[in-house]
Amino acid sequence: MELTVYLAGQIHDNWREELKNKVSSRNLPFTFVGPQENHERSDSIGEDVLGNQPSNLYRDHAASSINNFRTLVLMKKSDAVIALFGESYKQWNTAMDISTAIALNKPTILVRPESLIHPLKEIANKANVTVTSMDQALDVLAYVYE
Amino acid sequence: MELTVYLAGQIHDNWREELKNKVSSRNLPFTFVGPQENHERSDSIGEDVLGNQPSNLYRDHAASSINNFRTLVLMKKSDAVIALFGESYKQWNTAMDISTAIALNKPTILVRPESLIHPLKEIANKANVTVTSMDQALDVLAYVYE
Amino acid sequence: MELTVYLAGQIHDNWREELKNKVSSRNLPFTFVGPQENHERSDSIGEDVLGNQPSNLYRDHAASSINNFRTLVLMKKSDAVIALFGESYKQWNTAMDISTAIALNKPTILVRPESLIHPLKEIANKANVTVTSMDQALDVLAYVYE
Amino acid sequence: MELTVYLAGQIHDNWREELKNKVSSRNLPFTFVGPQENHERSDSIGEDVLGNQPSNLYRDHAASSINNFRTLVLMKKSDAVIALFGESYKQWNTAMDISTAIALNKPTILVRPESLIHPLKEIANKANVTVTSMDQALDVLAYVYE
Amino acid sequence: MELTVYLAGQIHDNWREELKNKVSSRNLPFTFVGPQENHERSDSIGEDVLGNQPSNLYRDHAASSINNFRTLVLMKKSDAVIALFGESYKQWNTAMDISTAIALNKPTILVRPESLIHPLKEIANKANVTVTSMDQALDVLAYVYE
Amino acid sequence: MELTVYLAGQIHDNWREELKNKVSSRNLPFTFVGPQENHERSDSIGEDVLGNQPSNLYRDHAASSINNFRTLVLMKKSDAVIALFGESYKQWNTAMDISTAIALNKPTILVRPESLIHPLKEIANKANVTVTSMDQALDVLAYVYE
Amino acid sequence: MELTVYLAGQIHDNWREELKNKVSSRNLPFTFVGPQENHERSDSIGEDVLGNQPSNLYRDHAASSINNFRTLVLMKKSDAVIALFGESYKQWNTAMDISTAIALNKPTILVRPESLIHPLKEIANKANVTVTSMDQALDVLAYVYE
Amino acid sequence: MELTVYLAGQIHDNWREELKNKVSSRNLPFTFVGPQENHERSDSIGEDVLGNQPSNLYRDHAASSINNFRTLVLMKKSDAVIALFGESYKQWNTAMDISTAIALNKPTILVRPESLIHPLKEIANKANVTVTSMDQALDVLAYVYE
Repeated sequence: MELTVYLAGQIHDNWREELKNKVSSRNLPFTFVGPQENHERSDSIGEDVLGNQPSNLYRDHAASSINNFRTLVLMKKSDAVIALFGESYKQWNTAMDISTAIALNKPTILVRPESLIHPLKEIANKANVTVTSMDQALDVLAYVYE
Repeated sequence: MELTVYLAGQIHDNWREELKNKVSSRNLPFTFVGPQENHERSDSIGEDVLGNQPSNLYRDHAASSINNFRTLVLMKKSDAVIALFGESYKQWNTAMDISTAIALNKPTILVRPESLIHPLKEIANKANVTVTSMDQALDVLAYVYE
Repeated sequence: MELTVYLAGQIHDNWREELKNKVSSRNLPFTFVGPQENHERSDSIGEDVLGNQPSNLYRDHAASSINNFRTLVLMKKSDAVIALFGESYKQWNTAMDISTAIALNKPTILVRPESLIHPLKEIANKANVTVTSMDQALDVLAYVYE
Repeated sequence: MELTVYLAGQIHDNWREELKNKVSSRNLPFTFVGPQENHERSDSIGEDVLGNQPSNLYRDHAASSINNFRTLVLMKKSDAVIALFGESYKQWNTAMDISTAIALNKPTILVRPESLIHPLKEIANKANVTVTSMDQALDVLAYVYE
Repeated sequence: MELTVYLAGQIHDNWREELKNKVSSRNLPFTFVGPQENHERSDSIGEDVLGNQPSNLYRDHAASSINNFRTLVLMKKSDAVIALFGESYKQWNTAMDISTAIALNKPTILVRPESLIHPLKEIANKANVTVTSMDQALDVLAYVYE
Repeated sequence: MELTVYLAGQIHDNWREELKNKVSSRNLPFTFVGPQENHERSDSIGEDVLGNQPSNLYRDHAASSINNFRTLVLMKKSDAVIALFGESYKQWNTAMDISTAIALNKPTILVRPESLIHPLKEIANKANVTVTSMDQALDVLAYVYE
Repeated sequence: MELTVYLAGQIHDNWREELKNKVSSRNLPFTFVGPQENHERSDSIGEDVLGNQPSNLYRDHAASSINNFRTLVLMKKSDAVIALFGESYKQWNTAMDISTAIALNKPTILVRPESLIHPLKEIANKANVTVTSMDQALDVLAYVYE
Repeated sequence: MELTVYLAGQIHDNWREELKNKVSSRNLPFTFVGPQENHERSDSIGEDVLGNQPSNLYRDHAASSINNFRTLVLMKKSDAVIALFGESYKQWNTAMDISTAIALNKPTILVRPESLIHPLKEIANKANVTVTSMDQALDVLAYVYE
């Protein structure tokens, strides 16, 4: 049994690559999908496809529609969702993605540093599992196959 | 990860063939499905299967029931829907297909010329992405794999 | 038992008023809801609320978002949907509304002139009932209480 | 037809009271519900009900479970959701509430200042309507009754 | 708490009237709804509304569409379904109505004479309760209020 | 794209075998599933598994529970349902199976002889397609691949 | 806003009466529903309605079908579910009722003594709120109105 | 057609291994999944992943969240659920798992000794099939392929 896992969270460093390397070294049957990780491309995809927009508002609107299309396609194909919150950035997309997954009854793992316990308490309470590191998230995923 | 995409829209020219050729030249893992593209066959399928009907009303009723069966089977198998509106024809089936896909939470791309912005504004607002050409629609599809 | 009925269709004449008068003269327990019937207001509602937009595309986008909000609120409150197609206009919103209602398993009545039998055949096949006049639609509604 | 509206957003000032006053002066048939607005009570409700917890983590866990119960009860009773984002605070609950409402096909209005256009672009794209002030949100609500 | 109950079953005698009399003498808070009980009207409703049809096939098609509209409206308003099978007639609508109710998770009571145990065994197994008389069905309904 | 099709209907002759032979001679990518076709085994499966039951009522109850388990497993795996009504037998399971499929939004084909038009009119109106022979049903299935 | 609350749990003492008295003294707008609380009647309801059954197995089968009908009717009418576990009895119905409520996205409160923390840990993790006394459960309910 | 079957029930002996051996000797195309069968690991998984917890309550909370994640992932992949009740232990997870499966319309088989007929009567009434031994459960599964 193979599982597809959506990786929600910020796209400012290469945490997804690190995760994939860890998984491959543990030889686990997971396929990971997620948002566009090239931040510039993610912001410009609307104009890249549709051409120049009249202002940043519309530039963002165009980009977000294509990013949301991508997320919807990939999340519907996924068997579980891992959402990583870090200490920087607004991360409202991360909150949106895990909340959507919870509402659709997708199994979810929330990864958040201890400093964020208080502001994430209601999301943590709704997620299936809350951990503090990606290694712990992988332990949870791996547990499905024990 | 392979994706199946339903191509809603008029069946009066070979735009679907052109699309498939473009995709195949870009080497993307999509399977395209859609309505019966032979217009005459689409209109006569009811009588072809059930025999002569007492009037055009019933001829159309018979054909539409089989066309709707086909659409339901194929749309349920699809991971996304592209709907193309052009400047001719009523295109109410196109509106029906994309609205059904939206109601079922299928990811959707609306393709419409600029001349149709006003009459399609409510559908465009509900679709995930609105573009003006099929090349742009393919760019959106391809973005899922970036 | 009272029923709320959503009236989908063009907003260019006062057919909804005529319908309400007929119902009130037949003393039937229906509440009718529907889209904004003042066409200008329907087109300008986005700018009326949000201020000037940079082009017609964005003016339409703003208006459509508010019209769709209204339709979603009212359709979810409705027990049935009547959709009227006439011989003028694109009427893609009418197609969208009845298709959405069908996908949500709402009971639907399609009203269409005989001249539109062919282009509406697939929608007619999916609606619960297809009639050619609003009086017939009322007969169908009234039949629920016989 | 009366409508119940859930007011998602921060609980640090009395914006909900101001909104209710505006509505009452416009004589609109809305009932507003929302989260516990007493911030201290919202944070201590877990210990208020269950007694002392071993650490802040568990204090937060207890409070969040009761806050989530309240939100679920009230959101299921609601016909629409207004979510207000401001310039302070993490506001992940606001993102969670509107994302949950969207996933459940509840009509939604997002209120956000222009400074937050970029980080909220994907949520704005999924909400039915995006406005910049609560007065505009009320205009949208009132439009349902025009 | 008042309950609305749909009464599925044949329309050839006045069993629904008898039931309503029994309920009223037991003073129970039920509202009963169901199909058109005037058999002739039920068969002719299509032509009554739409005019003459080219053959019995189309006469039946027209009538059935309006009967199905009525059933859908009323069953969605119902909190429970009682389905009565007797020893005469095909009664496929009764089988359709209770099966639809079961698929929609509506509470169901099947009433069938002992002579029909064998051919109704799979439906009986899926209904919540199976009884042999309408008095027993009423006992079950009344039990909800004990 | 391969499709799985559930074949609902009586189990007194070998119509399913004939169908499979026709499909195989037309080289179509269908897998057919359906109820237990050995009538005796279908009636005795409850006692075969659970041992003797105290009366025919309980014998039937035991058998029906296992037949319903089988049907649920197989229908959930199916992309479409063909339901055949003939001129003999009560055929209430056939009515149950197609009604369940319709309620679950599975594509359906009803096959019925002309003598049964009247008693099956409401089911026919809800099925996607109604035909009079299995060859016509196959034509409809094959049309999905044209 | 009034709320209906289903009270799942054992029926061997009068804890539901005590709860109703407490609520009435706190003047809260709740309507409580639940299973048949007369244990003997709950066990004999099948034979009371259907007559003598051939053995205890069938006596229990008849009773359970009517108890499940009652629970389904009442739980669908409920806005929240409180489930009480005590230290005696198997209480599998309590586990069934709260699990069903959770699967249907009904808000849930689990009440359990500390001695049962370990065996109820997975249910507690899925319920919205877990408390140890009925007074605490009432505090949670009352919090919805603060 | 291959089927995945979730095996709910206690984890104190190796009944799942015995079942798999029987299936493999009968050459049936089933894949079995289920909970963590190492009882100690199941109880300690929370602390194994997250580190020491402040008390047994929180130890159990941490473990249950990961066990529930595992169950949700695997049950969503399953085509049927077998739930075994034995004469020892509370077995509330078994009741939770089968009730969840029933609410999600998964086909279910309940296995319970005759001594538990009475306390399991309502669950038995809702499961598709109730048997008294695992061999009988396998007979039911195998019947799907006859």
